[in-house]
Amino acid sequence: MRIDIITVLPEMIEGFFNYSIMSRAQKKGIAEFHIHNLRDYAYDRYRKVDDYPFGGCAGMVMKIEPIDRCISALKAERHYDEVIFTTPDGEQFNQKMANTLSMSQNLIILCGHFKGIDYRIREHFITKEISIGDYVLTGGELAAAVIADSIVRIIPGVISDEQSALSDSFQDNLLAPPVYTRPAEYNGWKVPDVLLSGHEAKIREWEFQQSLERTQRLRPDLLEGK
Amino acid sequence: MRIDIITVLPEMIEGFFNYSIMSRAQKKGIAEFHIHNLRDYAYDRYRKVDDYPFGGCAGMVMKIEPIDRCISALKAERHYDEVIFTTPDGEQFNQKMANTLSMSQNLIILCGHFKGIDYRIREHFITKEISIGDYVLTGGELAAAVIADSIVRIIPGVISDEQSALSDSFQDNLLAPPVYTRPAEYNGWKVPDVLLSGHEAKIREWEFQQSLERTQRLRPDLLEGK
Repeated sequence: MRIDIITVLPEMIEGFFNYSIMSRAQKKGIAEFHIHNLRDYAYDRYRKVDDYPFGGCAGMVMKIEPIDRCISALKAERHYDEVIFTTPDGEQFNQKMANTLSMSQNLIILCGHFKGIDYRIREHFITKEISIGDYVLTGGELAAAVIADSIVRIIPGVISDEQSALSDSFQDNLLAPPVYTRPAEYNGWKVPDVLLSGHEAKIREWEFQQSLERTQRLRPDLLEGK
Repeated sequence: MRIDIITVLPEMIEGFFNYSIMSRAQKKGIAEFHIHNLRDYAYDRYRKVDDYPFGGCAGMVMKIEPIDRCISALKAERHYDEVIFTTPDGEQFNQKMANTLSMSQNLIILCGHFKGIDYRIREHFITKEISIGDYVLTGGELAAAVIADSIVRIIPGVISDEQSALSDSFQDNLLAPPVYTRPAEYNGWKVPDVLLSGHEAKIREWEFQQSLERTQRLRPDLLEGK
């Protein structure tokens, strides 16, 4: 998989791609990441990528031309499955969407910044608008990193222990059960006896009951298949 | 506001805090960020912060001791409003929670990694568990960055144009209206006439109608106050 990220603040997310599971995926040849500085596509003297909005509202708006140039240059080289824009009014990102996107060959993620992007970009260049949650961020960079992380980690071979990813929360519509490690007692706080019993069937049953109870209590909507 | 972030991968998010609005908030003295490497609190030869889970499930689990030492050292210095753990089965993060947290003095955010953290940490040290969305990430670092970004940007003085933050999506339960900037025509795609009219009242009315229409179409749940 190849992911191209278009941003006005490459420095904000370069560390993430160099020091995480993303870096490992890249070294293994499973995924590659290309971060493009949008200012490289602004041809005026000040490398200007934003301008005042029509209509006099507050904030600055990202201009069409540099984004058109950057996306068009990328699309001239290869086919992209999706051109994604991260925005709080997009489709809600969830594990199911992550699973689907993880089967893509090539993705572009455009990070918004400032007040927003010229709406014509959304109408004519973007194929999928994604929101990672009901909150506003200073830019789309963190959202792009979140999307990349969640889809790349489930590509087979990226995480060393595939079982570990498959037993995550959400993959079976249940929250994960509690986990414990040594010491068995700390400050008087004990690990549940069943986990120390060595009785495999009882342990799996306990884990399932815990998952179910936690999901019913914390996220009943998941059980209703919403 | 002071935010302490505890992580096994400081490099993954340092760039974010150095090259974003977070850096500006820090220079202005409005917010300060301290990233703690959890391994500095592991006193064994290998600075080991994780161990095998009891019960034989896959993945590694973060140990209690280093986390206890780090959180206790911080709490000995000052009072914390919340000790937050980022986890997909936590309370759903949204703009309202961001608004509330933005009034805190001191926050700790513990980033999970590997399969999870020893559940006793969640029972005895954590005061608030937050999920940024229904998807799984390789670690809590990006979630911590998302939480920090969304709460710090709304502290008065961080964003230069406060009106800009107040007119964001969600702050009034409406999605933001479309925005446009120059040129007024590009590739034959035109900016809506009303925005070029100079008629302030008509522009505000158009923006409101657009917000309402977009919210009804894309996120009717927001209008129901869910």
